[in-house]
Amino acid sequence: MENAGLVEGLAADIAKRLRRSKTPVPIGVSNRHAHITAEHFEALFGKGAAITKLRDLTQPGQFAADERFDVQGPKGAIKGVRLLGPFRPKTQIEVSRTDALALGVQPPVRESGDLGGSAPLRLTGPCGSVEVREGLILARRHLHCTPAAAAAIGLSNGEIVRVSAGRGGGRGTVFEDTVVRVSEKFSLELHLDTDEANAAGVKTGDLAHIV
Amino acid sequence: MENAGLVEGLAADIAKRLRRSKTPVPIGVSNRHAHITAEHFEALFGKGAAITKLRDLTQPGQFAADERFDVQGPKGAIKGVRLLGPFRPKTQIEVSRTDALALGVQPPVRESGDLGGSAPLRLTGPCGSVEVREGLILARRHLHCTPAAAAAIGLSNGEIVRVSAGRGGGRGTVFEDTVVRVSEKFSLELHLDTDEANAAGVKTGDLAHIV
Repeated sequence: MENAGLVEGLAADIAKRLRRSKTPVPIGVSNRHAHITAEHFEALFGKGAAITKLRDLTQPGQFAADERFDVQGPKGAIKGVRLLGPFRPKTQIEVSRTDALALGVQPPVRESGDLGGSAPLRLTGPCGSVEVREGLILARRHLHCTPAAAAAIGLSNGEIVRVSAGRGGGRGTVFEDTVVRVSEKFSLELHLDTDEANAAGVKTGDLAHIV
Repeated sequence: MENAGLVEGLAADIAKRLRRSKTPVPIGVSNRHAHITAEHFEALFGKGAAITKLRDLTQPGQFAADERFDVQGPKGAIKGVRLLGPFRPKTQIEVSRTDALALGVQPPVRESGDLGGSAPLRLTGPCGSVEVREGLILARRHLHCTPAAAAAIGLSNGEIVRVSAGRGGGRGTVFEDTVVRVSEKFSLELHLDTDEANAAGVKTGDLAHIV
């Protein structure tokens, strides 16, 4: 009888996992990038300068800008970090842990916007430089989806899932601790940084599966 | 009755996994490095030059050398790649996929010594330069262990296992496709490259578990 209950529980769990795993999730690999405030933009690119759109990103309303600037840490610098638009209320630089080790900082793994206690750094653009006390993070791996996709797959906002990527390429990897973010503004996409993508041997557009 | 068989099968599998997962496996993070032939060493460091030991590595008989040299690919170069000793019958450079993208090459994921079709590159030392037609690989993640450890944990040479690392740090990661290498010359250690270690947020000496 105990076994029957165990089997039923396992069967229900397996059925849910199978349902989810049937929906392939496109991977979006995030290279290092920056979101900055209008004030910091002016400090780096000059008074009256305007942000210039290079191309739209997959997530609606977000775009890569033409502008790039340098990030300096205590050990080293990274040149030409890409700016994304639109401006944000807080400046937030997202790098890989490989980058962080080169900069000489140990930023925390954080969700976007959660910057308390994140690593300090100096930003330098063509027209000036600013010190940012908090603002450098390693992005927490996350899965964006619309409310409709969330309902179809059986996901809820804030839920933590495990996502499998890279199977068949010699570097199959299961990413635990992947947080689900549900919003009308999001299209279905698993966001990994370059370390995560390289560890699994995947690139933007490859497919992952919730497991 | 079918359920009883399923439960017994699952129970046996779970028991095996639990046995294995009780043995923590120390992680060794491999930064980019090179194994070279005596001939290539002479070409890079000069006729009559001797390899100099900097420090012993965890794996018995292996050592990091004082010598470093540059690796050049079609897109970029990496300076100061660390040489490991002793010399090998074939020159083999192991880099991360982050490094490979910077070099502009797409090396295969390979086990040590399996170099057919691997990426070409130029090596430059203080006394000269050599072209290597094959020799650049992304190391296949692997778990070294002694025959005694293999018997205790229930592992066999060549077996493919899944290893969990980084739990609790926000980047829990399960590394599939991890090949087991059993030899008297090996101490128990999970070898990851820097992309893999950074993806999981781990460093040398942290513990992983076979799952």
